[in-house]
Amino acid sequence: MSQRLHILVLNGPNLQLLGTREPEVYGTTTLAQLEEMLCCHAEKLGVAIECRQSNHEGQLLDWIGQAPDSFVGILLNAGAYTHTSIALRDAIAGTGLPTCEVHMSNIMARESFRQQTMLGGVCVGMVTGFGVHSYLWGLQALVRWLQVNGANKEI
Amino acid sequence: MSQRLHILVLNGPNLQLLGTREPEVYGTTTLAQLEEMLCCHAEKLGVAIECRQSNHEGQLLDWIGQAPDSFVGILLNAGAYTHTSIALRDAIAGTGLPTCEVHMSNIMARESFRQQTMLGGVCVGMVTGFGVHSYLWGLQALVRWLQVNGANKEI
Amino acid sequence: MSQRLHILVLNGPNLQLLGTREPEVYGTTTLAQLEEMLCCHAEKLGVAIECRQSNHEGQLLDWIGQAPDSFVGILLNAGAYTHTSIALRDAIAGTGLPTCEVHMSNIMARESFRQQTMLGGVCVGMVTGFGVHSYLWGLQALVRWLQVNGANKEI
Amino acid sequence: MSQRLHILVLNGPNLQLLGTREPEVYGTTTLAQLEEMLCCHAEKLGVAIECRQSNHEGQLLDWIGQAPDSFVGILLNAGAYTHTSIALRDAIAGTGLPTCEVHMSNIMARESFRQQTMLGGVCVGMVTGFGVHSYLWGLQALVRWLQVNGANKEI
Amino acid sequence: MSQRLHILVLNGPNLQLLGTREPEVYGTTTLAQLEEMLCCHAEKLGVAIECRQSNHEGQLLDWIGQAPDSFVGILLNAGAYTHTSIALRDAIAGTGLPTCEVHMSNIMARESFRQQTMLGGVCVGMVTGFGVHSYLWGLQALVRWLQVNGANKEI
Amino acid sequence: MSQRLHILVLNGPNLQLLGTREPEVYGTTTLAQLEEMLCCHAEKLGVAIECRQSNHEGQLLDWIGQAPDSFVGILLNAGAYTHTSIALRDAIAGTGLPTCEVHMSNIMARESFRQQTMLGGVCVGMVTGFGVHSYLWGLQALVRWLQVNGANKEI
Amino acid sequence: MSQRLHILVLNGPNLQLLGTREPEVYGTTTLAQLEEMLCCHAEKLGVAIECRQSNHEGQLLDWIGQAPDSFVGILLNAGAYTHTSIALRDAIAGTGLPTCEVHMSNIMARESFRQQTMLGGVCVGMVTGFGVHSYLWGLQALVRWLQVNGANKEI
Amino acid sequence: MSQRLHILVLNGPNLQLLGTREPEVYGTTTLAQLEEMLCCHAEKLGVAIECRQSNHEGQLLDWIGQAPDSFVGILLNAGAYTHTSIALRDAIAGTGLPTCEVHMSNIMARESFRQQTMLGGVCVGMVTGFGVHSYLWGLQALVRWLQVNGANKEI
Amino acid sequence: MSQRLHILVLNGPNLQLLGTREPEVYGTTTLAQLEEMLCCHAEKLGVAIECRQSNHEGQLLDWIGQAPDSFVGILLNAGAYTHTSIALRDAIAGTGLPTCEVHMSNIMARESFRQQTMLGGVCVGMVTGFGVHSYLWGLQALVRWLQVNGANKEI
Amino acid sequence: MSQRLHILVLNGPNLQLLGTREPEVYGTTTLAQLEEMLCCHAEKLGVAIECRQSNHEGQLLDWIGQAPDSFVGILLNAGAYTHTSIALRDAIAGTGLPTCEVHMSNIMARESFRQQTMLGGVCVGMVTGFGVHSYLWGLQALVRWLQVNGANKEI
Amino acid sequence: MSQRLHILVLNGPNLQLLGTREPEVYGTTTLAQLEEMLCCHAEKLGVAIECRQSNHEGQLLDWIGQAPDSFVGILLNAGAYTHTSIALRDAIAGTGLPTCEVHMSNIMARESFRQQTMLGGVCVGMVTGFGVHSYLWGLQALVRWLQVNGANKEI
Amino acid sequence: MSQRLHILVLNGPNLQLLGTREPEVYGTTTLAQLEEMLCCHAEKLGVAIECRQSNHEGQLLDWIGQAPDSFVGILLNAGAYTHTSIALRDAIAGTGLPTCEVHMSNIMARESFRQQTMLGGVCVGMVTGFGVHSYLWGLQALVRWLQVNGANKEI
Repeated sequence: MSQRLHILVLNGPNLQLLGTREPEVYGTTTLAQLEEMLCCHAEKLGVAIECRQSNHEGQLLDWIGQAPDSFVGILLNAGAYTHTSIALRDAIAGTGLPTCEVHMSNIMARESFRQQTMLGGVCVGMVTGFGVHSYLWGLQALVRWLQVNGANKEI
Repeated sequence: MSQRLHILVLNGPNLQLLGTREPEVYGTTTLAQLEEMLCCHAEKLGVAIECRQSNHEGQLLDWIGQAPDSFVGILLNAGAYTHTSIALRDAIAGTGLPTCEVHMSNIMARESFRQQTMLGGVCVGMVTGFGVHSYLWGLQALVRWLQVNGANKEI
Repeated sequence: MSQRLHILVLNGPNLQLLGTREPEVYGTTTLAQLEEMLCCHAEKLGVAIECRQSNHEGQLLDWIGQAPDSFVGILLNAGAYTHTSIALRDAIAGTGLPTCEVHMSNIMARESFRQQTMLGGVCVGMVTGFGVHSYLWGLQALVRWLQVNGANKEI
Repeated sequence: MSQRLHILVLNGPNLQLLGTREPEVYGTTTLAQLEEMLCCHAEKLGVAIECRQSNHEGQLLDWIGQAPDSFVGILLNAGAYTHTSIALRDAIAGTGLPTCEVHMSNIMARESFRQQTMLGGVCVGMVTGFGVHSYLWGLQALVRWLQVNGANKEI
Repeated sequence: MSQRLHILVLNGPNLQLLGTREPEVYGTTTLAQLEEMLCCHAEKLGVAIECRQSNHEGQLLDWIGQAPDSFVGILLNAGAYTHTSIALRDAIAGTGLPTCEVHMSNIMARESFRQQTMLGGVCVGMVTGFGVHSYLWGLQALVRWLQVNGANKEI
Repeated sequence: MSQRLHILVLNGPNLQLLGTREPEVYGTTTLAQLEEMLCCHAEKLGVAIECRQSNHEGQLLDWIGQAPDSFVGILLNAGAYTHTSIALRDAIAGTGLPTCEVHMSNIMARESFRQQTMLGGVCVGMVTGFGVHSYLWGLQALVRWLQVNGANKEI
Repeated sequence: MSQRLHILVLNGPNLQLLGTREPEVYGTTTLAQLEEMLCCHAEKLGVAIECRQSNHEGQLLDWIGQAPDSFVGILLNAGAYTHTSIALRDAIAGTGLPTCEVHMSNIMARESFRQQTMLGGVCVGMVTGFGVHSYLWGLQALVRWLQVNGANKEI
Repeated sequence: MSQRLHILVLNGPNLQLLGTREPEVYGTTTLAQLEEMLCCHAEKLGVAIECRQSNHEGQLLDWIGQAPDSFVGILLNAGAYTHTSIALRDAIAGTGLPTCEVHMSNIMARESFRQQTMLGGVCVGMVTGFGVHSYLWGLQALVRWLQVNGANKEI
Repeated sequence: MSQRLHILVLNGPNLQLLGTREPEVYGTTTLAQLEEMLCCHAEKLGVAIECRQSNHEGQLLDWIGQAPDSFVGILLNAGAYTHTSIALRDAIAGTGLPTCEVHMSNIMARESFRQQTMLGGVCVGMVTGFGVHSYLWGLQALVRWLQVNGANKEI
Repeated sequence: MSQRLHILVLNGPNLQLLGTREPEVYGTTTLAQLEEMLCCHAEKLGVAIECRQSNHEGQLLDWIGQAPDSFVGILLNAGAYTHTSIALRDAIAGTGLPTCEVHMSNIMARESFRQQTMLGGVCVGMVTGFGVHSYLWGLQALVRWLQVNGANKEI
Repeated sequence: MSQRLHILVLNGPNLQLLGTREPEVYGTTTLAQLEEMLCCHAEKLGVAIECRQSNHEGQLLDWIGQAPDSFVGILLNAGAYTHTSIALRDAIAGTGLPTCEVHMSNIMARESFRQQTMLGGVCVGMVTGFGVHSYLWGLQALVRWLQVNGANKEI
Repeated sequence: MSQRLHILVLNGPNLQLLGTREPEVYGTTTLAQLEEMLCCHAEKLGVAIECRQSNHEGQLLDWIGQAPDSFVGILLNAGAYTHTSIALRDAIAGTGLPTCEVHMSNIMARESFRQQTMLGGVCVGMVTGFGVHSYLWGLQALVRWLQVNGANKEI
């Protein structure tokens, strides 16, 4: 494996629709374009990322469960599962990988059922509201966090 | 593609058990029989339907996400996911396809946790309580709605 | 009395305003026009209907209480009383007449105080969200229910 | 006016159905029979009663508002209005007539929305659960209360 | 019709008892006296009023439904119905007539169930706590509102 | 054992203080005097009663558990335990003896935590608010209930 | 001191922004213009007013605490503090000065957290929803209240 | 099929991590080791088990739906889905197979959102808090239950 | 004292009625028979038990408080006190003895007020729903727990 | 009886364990030592105390009920009963003896179910958080209160 | 600095009104008199105090933030801020100074919104209900606490 | 004024304690050091910032109200006021300046009363959980937002 930090970027339900779905809320960047932007940004930050998306909670759980073998941190937009999934919370806590939550829209400014995150209690932090840039700042924040706290120190 | 309206009929969790499961609540018609009845009814209404069932929330999300390519509306019995799935709500809102909720039993007459629908806020309407006929009336209602409002007008 | 099934169609508070009130929500069909449409539809279904409207909860209760003498089922849009009236619930349960709730707008997509129905627990089913067509599908659903379950079998 | 205490007996919504409605819950005595039984009982207690029933909350309010001219107390089964009507509460408080609540079924043993009474706060007391006998014991209790506390002393 | 603005003054349940009921809370002015005071005040303001009272929610709904034919605004003390009546809320919204809520006692200083108004969401404003003067200031406020915003502009 | 119905009269916590405690709420009759009144009343009704009081929930449970050996019904003022004791509820349900709840003050007119009864769900009925007379009417109601329904029919 | 009634007019947080802030909600009148209008109105009513504004809850408390030395009543728009400040409630109760709450927008028609007032319980009354006119009617209402009840009678 | 009772052992989300995840909470036994222990225990009890694990709620639903063909009971640790999945509840109720819930940690001693089980209402019983032994006692309890109640009697 | 582990078996309110009370819920085994079964089972497990029952919460507290002198663990069915008794919770926490909760019926499948346990937070684990066998599996689970964790290690 | 004020010191459930139970929370002073300290302190304050402890709510109620014969005030640590016992509240209110609540740990800093006191509404005051000194300051506070307000003035 | 312990005495909103405001609740002692009494008492206890009052939450925060430079503990009556101020809670936790809450009236016996303290979780203890004496006992309790635990040991 | 974007950086209550207060939560960087870091970062981003801190909610309101004269955006850590201050919410909405919320600790992982933000509804976005870096990423995010959306476009 290379010397660079490897970070897993996970997108959850409906994010495959990015750029086509409710553009007035989520903008016109597609998921592929977002991932490309993110790769460039990772390059600049000197880290390697791997991007995956699934609508299946179970698939996300599989990936998180296997992540410690290949990654030192997770950048996660769990979409609608953010607000209700105890299983995702348990997976993150179980693997012990530092995880940063990101959201494109500001979840604190939307319906009340979106203003809580079941994941917050086990994540390092959250960046919310800055569209596709939420991912960029979130990645940057996570990388810095790993540099400061050490990439294999559990949160 | 033919000139006829194409409508996606989706059945969610445990509906594969139809006809075998709690017949005193859900009757003895199997899912296959229901889908056949529904096809006949669609024929009469001059529309084409395609029926799918899955226990996987992720699979339902995949199908809804791809639906705009082939369909102009969705007839949906999301089963138990009706009451809690923000992801299904987002998928429907994201695709913008007019969707009609149906339920065999009257959900408003059951346990309190079944008396709310997370999907209602993004659906055209709901037919509930008429057993397998809920699907028939729901399909009829959706088709008429599409004829009145136009098949490609977003809700 | 004729051989045809007789069904009572009840409209509750403010429905006399139909067609004039908030047309962007309720459309432009007046109550008289709606009742006429419904009569035609009943004709086709081979049943007889009698349409009444009142803003008075007490009047609605009187009518429901007397209904078993002349009718075998009720098609009911209780308007705003839907959400709070225990008395209407008791009247329906008391007479034991199969009752179908209808609503023009999708009550599950409106203010939270409209997303619950005090009547659901004692009704056969509900059709909601299809404008004046909600009545048509509701009538059709009720008639079929009566044919399947028998017109004098209590729910 | 005679020397005897005059008491108003009010029955609220759906009580005109007594004896015909859900006999397994409310028994087979009709409202007319109940009122006759109550008259006999009043006779024995040496008081005069006048019995009225209405499904109209407004009618009940009219009667209570006028009651102080002719009556010294009220025996009240407000039916479903018991649980929600602030207006009835205000009417009783406004007239200041000692009022006894009665219920045929034990409201404390039914659905949670029936286990609270909006009227309790302004009534002398309540008798609940003894079928038609609830009226008899309630009348007896009210008469004794009036004898002990004086018929024109406000509660 | 005259050139003067015509305003409907509606009093709801138990307000016929005014001046006799709980004078320590509501004062000793009767409803007739109040209406007379209000007429004088209207005279000074150059508007015409018509005063009606009913204990029947249905009657109030009837009047509000017909109001747009004869009136340009409503001054409303819905009494106890204020706190629970969705039907009155719908009627006001349905007619689109600018409506001013008034209350004699300060509802915000009473029992918690009186501290909310189901009507507030569709009214122009509220004057509460100034006894019979609440009506005077409410009328004045409504008239001014109509002059500023135009008498036939919907709220 | 005699032919007369035997009824157990149970008084719960703090009722030994009767007549001395908060007389403005509970009057000046002592527990001994109340029991004597009740005996006289039982005599007239042709039944036998046995009166016991305890501040100990466990003692009340012991007595109720043994009651079926000697009694056919229970007249119960469980005092403050009324509102919270699941154990008393279970004991009454377990023995299956018809039980009538009584309260001196009108519990529905007091603090909100006194407006609910944990026992209501398993009792025949309740008489509340008539001071010491609540016991008399409660006894009378229970005896009549036993005569109508049979003394050994479980509720 | 002059013979005229002296009234303190207090404006709370963000009201310095009046006329510039969200004009579609609050109009274009500035605080200075509002105070001038109010002075004219006071002149006509024959009373003297003194207008102050602060964003500091502590400053408002200081002023209210000192008010009894110079004023006989308070006209108060506590802005956002209305909904949460127990301290303002205590200050008003502590000084015992009759206080009238005013709000420009109708707080009962806004977000649920604005539909309750912590101050209502200790104020004479409230005028809400009439823009800058709320102050005029509120002042008028307060002055009349003082004339009727006496300027130094505690509420 | 053999004469022995066949029981399906299902493990839900994140249980593939057993032995590696939060060992201070869940111990160091891996899922494979647990399943082996359980097989030995089944052997002693004279029953056959088949062990499956999935992170996918839909997969668990598929398996439960097919279970009646091959199994007479289910031993289920639904992990995080325990607390929210109405679909799993419906699947168990739908198949009618006696099911025993097990949990390694004592769910009643953890966060409040883990102290409720959506599945409890349709399960025979639960064993919670005894680490890997919860499975052993749960299996034993289920087998005994089947022996006492009959293996094909629905719960 | 012998070398064998000594375990205190405590039964709470109404469990003296076992076998006589609601047999359709709790079966026909009496408390004495249950205790005998349990003794046999203890014998096989090589431990000594002492069985006590009381309806008195205070007695249960006394026994738990003294338990550390003679016992190394507690098997507890606190009956109705399970759901509300903070005092029992404190007693268990205070003595530090490993405690296993047992219930005959599945408390998670009953009324909502029985679905929570005030004791869970301080107990090792719980076995619920297996009738008298709940005690057997609970004893077995507790004994194994003590063997694994050491009999005098506080939980 | 001596001239000195006599005060009853009551300790509730589990306080017999003091000094042995959770010393990191409650310290190492035993109940006997605490009572001795308290006697010395009483001596200095010139009052007489009598100390009693019981785990039985009924016993505490008996003692409080009899207290007015021998005591002029009560110093009470009701332990876990503090948070739920309406019966203790009633007993204190019934006897009318000035009562001071004390707690060793700061109940306002513990679990939410310990942050409320059912007794507060009928007690003079509370001292909480100062370990065994809470009793000393509580006694001192109560004695001073009695001296200021008179020993036989009801609260 | 002298050898004596220095303690900061802080009074929050509206306490400048002491002695003038609602004397039936708070007595007639002014703040100046209270502070004098407290100084005398401090003298006897051998400690030095400095008394400050402010209506400004920000001022209280400034003082608490600076307190560690000059003081070893805080005696705090935060008045109405007690119930809602997270900022005061944070300030106390941030400085780490042992703090004792005092209240003149018994906050546990007042409106429900006063029965909770946002500060309790970070304070050593509380004395409530003893009028001006609450300060004296609170000071005494705090001083003793500091002597026992050491003046510079953080809580 | 220079060509560079001017941004106001506001720190709220207790943030003057940074670096000294609970370092295990907030780290050891002081407010001065943080502001210096932030200035460097601003320099790199090509924008100008001005840093202010106050414990006074009123002061923060004053500054926000004046901000539109000198700034195009706000970076805000409102500390404890975040969770409850409607006034700050109104100020931000009133000025219409794009605002980014930042928090050092992850507020979604702390006490439940910190998991909601009253400000979220009117802010562009939030960065939470990255210690002093939260400010850096927040500034970066805000600057980019301003560049994309235009510095004087209201949110």
